[in-house]
Amino acid sequence: MTDSIFSEYPPGLSQAQQEYLVTTIKDWAIQNGLAVRPPPAAIPDGTDLHRVLATNAPVTLFPSPFPAVCFEEAKALQTVYNQLYATITCNEEWLGRVIEDLIDVDDFVANLWKTHLEVKKEGYVQPLSLGLFRSDYMAHVTPGSTPSLKQVEFNTISSSFGGLSALVRTLHAELLMSPPGFPISYPPHHLFESNIPPENNAVETLSGGLAAAHTAYGMSKSTPALPLCVLFVVQDGERNIFDQLALSKHLTQVHKIPVFRLPSNRILNDTLIPSSNSSRPLIYHPPHSPGSAFEVTTVYLRAYYAPDEYKSSKDWTARVHLERSAAIKCPTVLNQLSGCKKIQQVLAEPTGPDHLSSFMSGSDPAVVARLRETFAPQYDLSSDGRGRELALNPETAMKHVLKPQREGGGNNIYKSEIPDFLRSIPEKDWKGWVLMELINPAPNAENVALRNDGEVLRGKVISELGVYGTILWDSTGKALHNDQGGWLLRTKGQEVNEGGVAAGFSSLDSILLY
Amino acid sequence: MTDSIFSEYPPGLSQAQQEYLVTTIKDWAIQNGLAVRPPPAAIPDGTDLHRVLATNAPVTLFPSPFPAVCFEEAKALQTVYNQLYATITCNEEWLGRVIEDLIDVDDFVANLWKTHLEVKKEGYVQPLSLGLFRSDYMAHVTPGSTPSLKQVEFNTISSSFGGLSALVRTLHAELLMSPPGFPISYPPHHLFESNIPPENNAVETLSGGLAAAHTAYGMSKSTPALPLCVLFVVQDGERNIFDQLALSKHLTQVHKIPVFRLPSNRILNDTLIPSSNSSRPLIYHPPHSPGSAFEVTTVYLRAYYAPDEYKSSKDWTARVHLERSAAIKCPTVLNQLSGCKKIQQVLAEPTGPDHLSSFMSGSDPAVVARLRETFAPQYDLSSDGRGRELALNPETAMKHVLKPQREGGGNNIYKSEIPDFLRSIPEKDWKGWVLMELINPAPNAENVALRNDGEVLRGKVISELGVYGTILWDSTGKALHNDQGGWLLRTKGQEVNEGGVAAGFSSLDSILLY
Repeated sequence: MTDSIFSEYPPGLSQAQQEYLVTTIKDWAIQNGLAVRPPPAAIPDGTDLHRVLATNAPVTLFPSPFPAVCFEEAKALQTVYNQLYATITCNEEWLGRVIEDLIDVDDFVANLWKTHLEVKKEGYVQPLSLGLFRSDYMAHVTPGSTPSLKQVEFNTISSSFGGLSALVRTLHAELLMSPPGFPISYPPHHLFESNIPPENNAVETLSGGLAAAHTAYGMSKSTPALPLCVLFVVQDGERNIFDQLALSKHLTQVHKIPVFRLPSNRILNDTLIPSSNSSRPLIYHPPHSPGSAFEVTTVYLRAYYAPDEYKSSKDWTARVHLERSAAIKCPTVLNQLSGCKKIQQVLAEPTGPDHLSSFMSGSDPAVVARLRETFAPQYDLSSDGRGRELALNPETAMKHVLKPQREGGGNNIYKSEIPDFLRSIPEKDWKGWVLMELINPAPNAENVALRNDGEVLRGKVISELGVYGTILWDSTGKALHNDQGGWLLRTKGQEVNEGGVAAGFSSLDSILLY
Repeated sequence: MTDSIFSEYPPGLSQAQQEYLVTTIKDWAIQNGLAVRPPPAAIPDGTDLHRVLATNAPVTLFPSPFPAVCFEEAKALQTVYNQLYATITCNEEWLGRVIEDLIDVDDFVANLWKTHLEVKKEGYVQPLSLGLFRSDYMAHVTPGSTPSLKQVEFNTISSSFGGLSALVRTLHAELLMSPPGFPISYPPHHLFESNIPPENNAVETLSGGLAAAHTAYGMSKSTPALPLCVLFVVQDGERNIFDQLALSKHLTQVHKIPVFRLPSNRILNDTLIPSSNSSRPLIYHPPHSPGSAFEVTTVYLRAYYAPDEYKSSKDWTARVHLERSAAIKCPTVLNQLSGCKKIQQVLAEPTGPDHLSSFMSGSDPAVVARLRETFAPQYDLSSDGRGRELALNPETAMKHVLKPQREGGGNNIYKSEIPDFLRSIPEKDWKGWVLMELINPAPNAENVALRNDGEVLRGKVISELGVYGTILWDSTGKALHNDQGGWLLRTKGQEVNEGGVAAGFSSLDSILLY
């Protein structure tokens, strides 16, 4: 089925058809906020001095076929995954053991852990944690059998594209149905008959999580009481801002919650924790409204997720400042750490202790088994064992990818290059890498992408499905709110994933279920 | 009242306040489609090869105070104005007398009239006409008395900005109310208390007119019957496209009507009238869907309104082609002609025959009087009389402006420059100009504008209110649909209107009633 679907998908386009689709999508994107700020490199110096220009987010012209069985399973498992990562985050002792092993190969993890220890020493004042997660998968194809769902990674911080992804779904759905009654925007194709992408309520789900935290925070802890707000901590000059604004718009308009955006480099200027108040409320003073003060119920991090964002000790001071406050953090430092690749590897290691079952001890074993089914086998390389065997043997290496634990720690190493690569680095650094069995996506999937500079590229692609979930839990791991909803399909030119030359497209996509 | 309002409006802004407002508006504009394509001059050659970039439409940071009495009167009179222009358009004999007098000074009017005569000779097949009108006004201020409403012009073709103007109203309303419960986006000002701009349903009104025409067209006149559509005839490379897309989106999503956009230079390629069908249906063949054919119920012109759009006889052929078809035209050639400045002058001429009363013979005389109240006195200069007296006397000239009848025929001539200007051109050309008594807008109105390149300008401004109306009528002038709704406030730097150096801002604005 998977093979035959792609042998004739997407339909070919005449020049007039492609021109129509590209023009329609370009205009639709700007009309509906499916937009990004252009990369500075695309705009010559001195042209866009006030940073007003925008362009379409990179999108595929067509939705990509995706196996319904995998999509449904991913959605069904999301609240289970939410709870699993809440439980892991609450097990500081276990988390600490895994993390401390990484400290000498991963500065970033080391600094995050130090941040946690510093706040722990003083004592946390906020028992609640909020997670806005995205679990990323591929549909793993084995000739002759049903495609299965395999997890690529689990994101516990700054899970992005919920806002734009919902828009891409609307775009493709509208194209499939337009004009009303006589749909001719796409050339005819049997997959288009009575078929539109499934609903995508990512914005509602993610905003719903933030609203649940805002409500759970309760009354102001200040005297006199202050008005409450949610704070989006963002990167200065964020290009993907319209993705974030989709959430703040929903929070403001539907939940009637004040939301402010604060660049991470302004945290120490515009927020404070009154030293006289042992509840440690986080107070935000909007610079545009002298004399106003809001108490922050929820800090939503769309920054501080990557090492290169911590430019100086001031950034670590700011992170500690947020962490020690009474605001609910999305995420806490511990929750951020639970998302590191090493944790996924430990959970997915086919040999050794069954951590997954321990974390899910109260769950239906059938559900634990289904969750485990989504793991691609992953191996530790810190000492001799199955991982090293598979990695160093050129034959078995062919079925694997080597991923750096460290964010921004370099590119993945694929297949035949693995043995030589490992031998080229000191053995003591091997524990900084995770060996993962390759997932086989449909080999002949194709799509056409419209880049954000307007270039149109057609070619073989690999798609990753992300499913959004949100959970609010207390210090015992008990969930006060656990929800899933909304998805992302990100589609890349196949060459991108082979570790070689980037083919230059990674696009937002949507789904046609088959 | 008017004076005191502006003495303290808009509130001053600190740098942080201005930065906050500008950033918020820039981002809001792109998120919500309050956008334009940037002028090619703003983008260096070779940068935006695929024309994907967009920027915010020029907007004011604050809504402008506007007298409620004038706003309500403009809305109350709109359906009366709709009917007046429908009635004028149906009186071909009267219209012809006025127009024929302009033929030797205005090529464009001459060619439009010729187009009408050509189709008349063959015989019109469509008895219905659609108007999407915008009547533009200023609030005329006389010290010590209530401001009065004075018409600047009446637009019968391509009345624009309905889509974007509705968005500016939403933008200003949201700023006034944000964050929810604790509005601090603007500095405090007494005008902001419990006050937001009035509803702006321009999109619903204009789309409603198009939908009424689409329905009134009835069944397909083709054999076999074809699916029906509305055709937006547009300029190639239109920069104000998002204004137009707001209407087509509403037509598609709410009225479920197929809409296509056709650049005027493609009319003769992509549409045809089958010679075998005496009903002359206009058939559109979408180039992106070979084999598809739609019958056009309604041709909505967002092109062909200005002389420079008719680059060759091919354009006039295309205009005749549309005009002779069975599609309902918005507008017909005659309706377009009814909007020329000379017609307004004839209606507003204080001396001579009372054409207004004749056209409104069935109406309540009080309503006729209220309509007449909106005219600034206007004078013919074709022969000796009151107009020439006022224009040539330096003292009375000071209270007037000289406007060219011809679109794109040059700038307005103001006050003291009028006598010398008239003497510098041949007397036979004087009839190409209309003398109009100056309207006095509030002299000390101020606002702050964000241009589409991000520059922020503060200064004295002049605002024009436009009110939208739509009417569908038959060849006897009887209205099948007559509606008003939605408005535009366009605000310019004061210098712009003084005929001198353009101060560089003309912005979309909204209204705070006082």
